[in-house]
Amino acid sequence: MSEQEEYIDPSPVWDSLDVDLFVKVLKHTAFSPFFVMLIPTFYIFQGAKLTDSIVLGSAAYYVLVASFWAIRWISRLYSNQGSLMYAPRPLDWSDQIVVITGGSSGVGELLANTLAVKSVSVVVLDVKPIQAQNYNITYYKCDVSKWEEVEAVSKKVIEEIGQPTILVNNAGVAQGKLILDLSPEDIQQTFGVNTLAHFWTLKAFLPGMIEKKKGHIVTMASNLGIHGVAQMTDYSASKAALINLNRSLRSELDKRYKCPSIRTTLVCPGHIHTSLFATAKPSQRFFFPTLHPIDVVKRIIQAVDDTHSQIIYLPFYTEFMPYLQLLPDWFADLASWLSNADFAVVDFVKLSGRRPEEGPAPAVNTEQEMGDKFKSS
Amino acid sequence: MSEQEEYIDPSPVWDSLDVDLFVKVLKHTAFSPFFVMLIPTFYIFQGAKLTDSIVLGSAAYYVLVASFWAIRWISRLYSNQGSLMYAPRPLDWSDQIVVITGGSSGVGELLANTLAVKSVSVVVLDVKPIQAQNYNITYYKCDVSKWEEVEAVSKKVIEEIGQPTILVNNAGVAQGKLILDLSPEDIQQTFGVNTLAHFWTLKAFLPGMIEKKKGHIVTMASNLGIHGVAQMTDYSASKAALINLNRSLRSELDKRYKCPSIRTTLVCPGHIHTSLFATAKPSQRFFFPTLHPIDVVKRIIQAVDDTHSQIIYLPFYTEFMPYLQLLPDWFADLASWLSNADFAVVDFVKLSGRRPEEGPAPAVNTEQEMGDKFKSS
Repeated sequence: MSEQEEYIDPSPVWDSLDVDLFVKVLKHTAFSPFFVMLIPTFYIFQGAKLTDSIVLGSAAYYVLVASFWAIRWISRLYSNQGSLMYAPRPLDWSDQIVVITGGSSGVGELLANTLAVKSVSVVVLDVKPIQAQNYNITYYKCDVSKWEEVEAVSKKVIEEIGQPTILVNNAGVAQGKLILDLSPEDIQQTFGVNTLAHFWTLKAFLPGMIEKKKGHIVTMASNLGIHGVAQMTDYSASKAALINLNRSLRSELDKRYKCPSIRTTLVCPGHIHTSLFATAKPSQRFFFPTLHPIDVVKRIIQAVDDTHSQIIYLPFYTEFMPYLQLLPDWFADLASWLSNADFAVVDFVKLSGRRPEEGPAPAVNTEQEMGDKFKSS
Repeated sequence: MSEQEEYIDPSPVWDSLDVDLFVKVLKHTAFSPFFVMLIPTFYIFQGAKLTDSIVLGSAAYYVLVASFWAIRWISRLYSNQGSLMYAPRPLDWSDQIVVITGGSSGVGELLANTLAVKSVSVVVLDVKPIQAQNYNITYYKCDVSKWEEVEAVSKKVIEEIGQPTILVNNAGVAQGKLILDLSPEDIQQTFGVNTLAHFWTLKAFLPGMIEKKKGHIVTMASNLGIHGVAQMTDYSASKAALINLNRSLRSELDKRYKCPSIRTTLVCPGHIHTSLFATAKPSQRFFFPTLHPIDVVKRIIQAVDDTHSQIIYLPFYTEFMPYLQLLPDWFADLASWLSNADFAVVDFVKLSGRRPEEGPAPAVNTEQEMGDKFKSS
């Protein structure tokens, strides 16, 4: 049962209206340097003098907006050893071999299918097989939390498919329990799948990238890795580890392995509409909208296409989460109260990544609930 | 061989002169509201009028300084459900049972000994026995990275000593290898000791604290957990997990277990002069000074004594590390270049926490090196 089948498309306009839509519109209007540049220009064409306050004011606003984007752009070029003169060479997708862990469901599955229809060779590592029919996808059974399995499978992948050029460390699991309710096996699984697996796949696939001084490593973290919430202590901690791993890995690639051209992209999404968090219930849909997997997949493909290292915050509110730790606690409490974050997983049911001893998932009418969620609030 | 034996006291004044000393002086002078208040007062006593610019200027400066400390103080009271009218009741140390993991060396050992001479019951969990003679310290052999051992030992501790009221999760290990040089056992050990052990000890000792709605959990993280560096990918990631665990644990205690009076203190120290990082070489001693274990122990005892949850950044520069992730990458690169952080552990030798299969530590004349470090730069 993939997330696509469960998904009920929200048809009425009001159901898909959220702050991210406003931000998108503003980015193309009031905060777009190209759009804003037109304001003083049009006034001048209408006969206004250069010294008129409306021309000076709108020109000053243009400088402000343009500086904001220029600083962002130059910082990004700096981080990626880019040049202001030349754009990076476009990525030749037909040359790429993409390994996706946890590629049999959720974001990983959609990414695998999307790349496969672009004729990219996709290798899926997962404990359960992918349902796809596309012959560009090769599935290998692999519990990525175990080094022995990753080691064995990676050798087979390199031999049978070739040296992967893009590694998407996407596999994740959540328990949704309070700290004292977590069993030792729960905690081991969370850190095994969410954190250690990244070390295993890096050990397996990074040497080949370093040899060619080329590649892209995509790390699926979470906004909870920036600021942890109740009932997700293990998950939050395991994802925080990834955010910092991305940082120190970047330093090693740049300064110690001398491979700045191996790119690292960190993804910090909010709540995504997949089976992993089907039973989580964020209360406030306008400021804290739920993502559809396609929103995340689009941004990942864009990042790899850009061949630029970047940090992807999605949806808009997650951009502000790193500020929480610098502000007094009552900001975080306010954000928690607004987003209901500390109570969002009260009725959590673990649907994906269940271990054999946990038995099959109890019947939860997520489809109904999903529909309700889109209808209500 | 404890860190005390290795430590060579820096005698000349210039050897202990660093930015932290300046900050300490400024906190008691130019940034102290009590001191600053005297400036306008003295001018008035000297005959200056209330409207004189020197009086108005220094009064405005006083308001600025006082507001800064007032906001900090009120935020802290807010986080700890404190009152502006009443101070919290002083902690009765004689009632406390303190569990210290990794208490046989470094900061843990010094903390155990310091508390023991204050007649506090101290329980040390470590793989190697503590050298101390103090009968207030009880040592239990325990590999805290293993749930089975923690579970068994915790039962014995509660039976033989009593329910611990203060838990200092201090055990830590570092490998100091580049990511591809880390063996799977290295990575498992880092996360087992540095991260999972916190979950195990919380599972073991938190229920008793929740029952009494009282207690204090001290989490030893690291400044590298805020911003990871090269050759410390595993360590940085494992410590980042702790910083976020502290946050989500705080949320659970406040909102889900309804025990805000169980305090949580997070410690984010820079380089400490212990056997763990004896072979690390920070290059810049003025802005990035090396801590002595006593600096950290003093602040931990102060935090527990205050019965206030807090985050301890030590030394001064670490206060700014959370800002790094909000600034463009070239700030972090500048900081890394100034502090030599990405090259500080190039010659790292693992002296503490060696696994049996790693054999004994090679002979490294850390004493000599430590002396050199204090002499040079």
